[in-house]
Amino acid sequence: MKITAEIAVNDGTLYKVEHESTFTKTLMKVNVFIPKVIKQSEKIPFILYLSGLTCTPDNASEKSMIIYFASLKNLAVVLPDTSPRGAGIEGEDDNWDFGTGAGFYVDSINKPWNENYNMYSYINTEIFQLINDNFPIIDTSKCGITGHSMGGYGAIMMHLRNEGKFKSCSAFAPISNPSIVPWGEKCFGNYLGNDKTKWEEYDPCCLIKKINKDRKGDILIHVGDKDVFNYRDNQLRCENLVEASKGTNWEIDLNVVKGYDHSYYFVSSFMKDHIEWHYNRLNK
Amino acid sequence: MKITAEIAVNDGTLYKVEHESTFTKTLMKVNVFIPKVIKQSEKIPFILYLSGLTCTPDNASEKSMIIYFASLKNLAVVLPDTSPRGAGIEGEDDNWDFGTGAGFYVDSINKPWNENYNMYSYINTEIFQLINDNFPIIDTSKCGITGHSMGGYGAIMMHLRNEGKFKSCSAFAPISNPSIVPWGEKCFGNYLGNDKTKWEEYDPCCLIKKINKDRKGDILIHVGDKDVFNYRDNQLRCENLVEASKGTNWEIDLNVVKGYDHSYYFVSSFMKDHIEWHYNRLNK
Repeated sequence: MKITAEIAVNDGTLYKVEHESTFTKTLMKVNVFIPKVIKQSEKIPFILYLSGLTCTPDNASEKSMIIYFASLKNLAVVLPDTSPRGAGIEGEDDNWDFGTGAGFYVDSINKPWNENYNMYSYINTEIFQLINDNFPIIDTSKCGITGHSMGGYGAIMMHLRNEGKFKSCSAFAPISNPSIVPWGEKCFGNYLGNDKTKWEEYDPCCLIKKINKDRKGDILIHVGDKDVFNYRDNQLRCENLVEASKGTNWEIDLNVVKGYDHSYYFVSSFMKDHIEWHYNRLNK
Repeated sequence: MKITAEIAVNDGTLYKVEHESTFTKTLMKVNVFIPKVIKQSEKIPFILYLSGLTCTPDNASEKSMIIYFASLKNLAVVLPDTSPRGAGIEGEDDNWDFGTGAGFYVDSINKPWNENYNMYSYINTEIFQLINDNFPIIDTSKCGITGHSMGGYGAIMMHLRNEGKFKSCSAFAPISNPSIVPWGEKCFGNYLGNDKTKWEEYDPCCLIKKINKDRKGDILIHVGDKDVFNYRDNQLRCENLVEASKGTNWEIDLNVVKGYDHSYYFVSSFMKDHIEWHYNRLNK
């Protein structure tokens, strides 16, 4: 792991990191924020923030205010990238909603993507190893996961698939039922192939019904009622997750907020609520 | 004036505005944030934020956290652009630190720039007219002025030149003595010509000694000790303003903050302090 920049922010430090990934077989960038730590002897929890389509680790670091609100609660923040970059696959840069910047947090099984597009294992395994090995101040057993849009889907999906791994989960405008919307159909179809039973393994609306029936949980979601990807394009379908959760032990705390769109202005406006949600559950 | 976007953020609204300027003879963009107003009968003060080299109104709107902290104090925020754009002058787009994105907040007297590059009057006159005519909720007699880098210089210079116009002034990493540093020499030389007495009319270190001797004031400044434009390139010279203020009634509250650079990570980290500085003076 190489630290390429060390930036003072909100009394703490943002580390820009690069490392060779075994899962994507490419150089991956990660941003890691460490707040000002009062007691050096204590390890601190962290928030794993998964970004949306087209984003690098920098977008949310600069615009979401997650660093500011995390710093107030003495939480670290880890912001991975959204796909391999420069894998050298033909067509990888042709679409903004597929390929580069659009890894969709799955392990690809379809050629030619399966060599590099393994963002599920990259996030779920390698990011945790990277933090364990290089940032001993962070307690990786105390992780809250969140994200925006494709990253909101990623956060919910990761949480549902990994019982006990994440202590809290929230999402901003998540793609909640990817199997039945254009963004998901494009990415799942290319990365996972035509067998839709494979898609169900990553779709929050399918997962919430299939996972351990005794498992309880709650997920905080905000989405704007002027989010064009929701009300116009029907890409998000947050209501479907509420519907799918009926009859389970899961509480989906869906807040449709008036006037807000899909941008970081929306994300930053509700970041305080999300950080408090995670803080309360991480410190139980 | 045309509103091109209306974005919900931090309980208020960010208006993206375009208007034809009589001073720059170009279409100018401005961002205006109006917080959630409780008492509709009361006008509210505003912060005028001048941006740095290369910036549009969007950079600070997205990254400086000024909207968040202003919203907490019920302050409006006005964010103008940093130069005319598309004036059609040969060479206007050739440099990042001169021409487009680098109006340097002066009224040019040198051809060919004097037709359009009149950012001093644009900010000092036209922006106030625009707000008066279109945002009656804002009390333009209650303005605090601030800015970053070139905009920090602009804020201090505007405040010193206009007794009584601004109720408070602060700056982030301001170019404090532009007459003697490369950025200032390039812009002043081109916009104002070779007669350096013309440059002094815009240089905070010259102005603070020459203005009304009885006039009192205070200016809050933060600058990072890892700001390469300061410690390496000597472009800022904030200490020169402290030195120039000796023997005057002006207090320059210069804070050299450890570890911080020149980026919006730095600006956002001290925005809370600056908004409180303005709030206290605007509500006297």
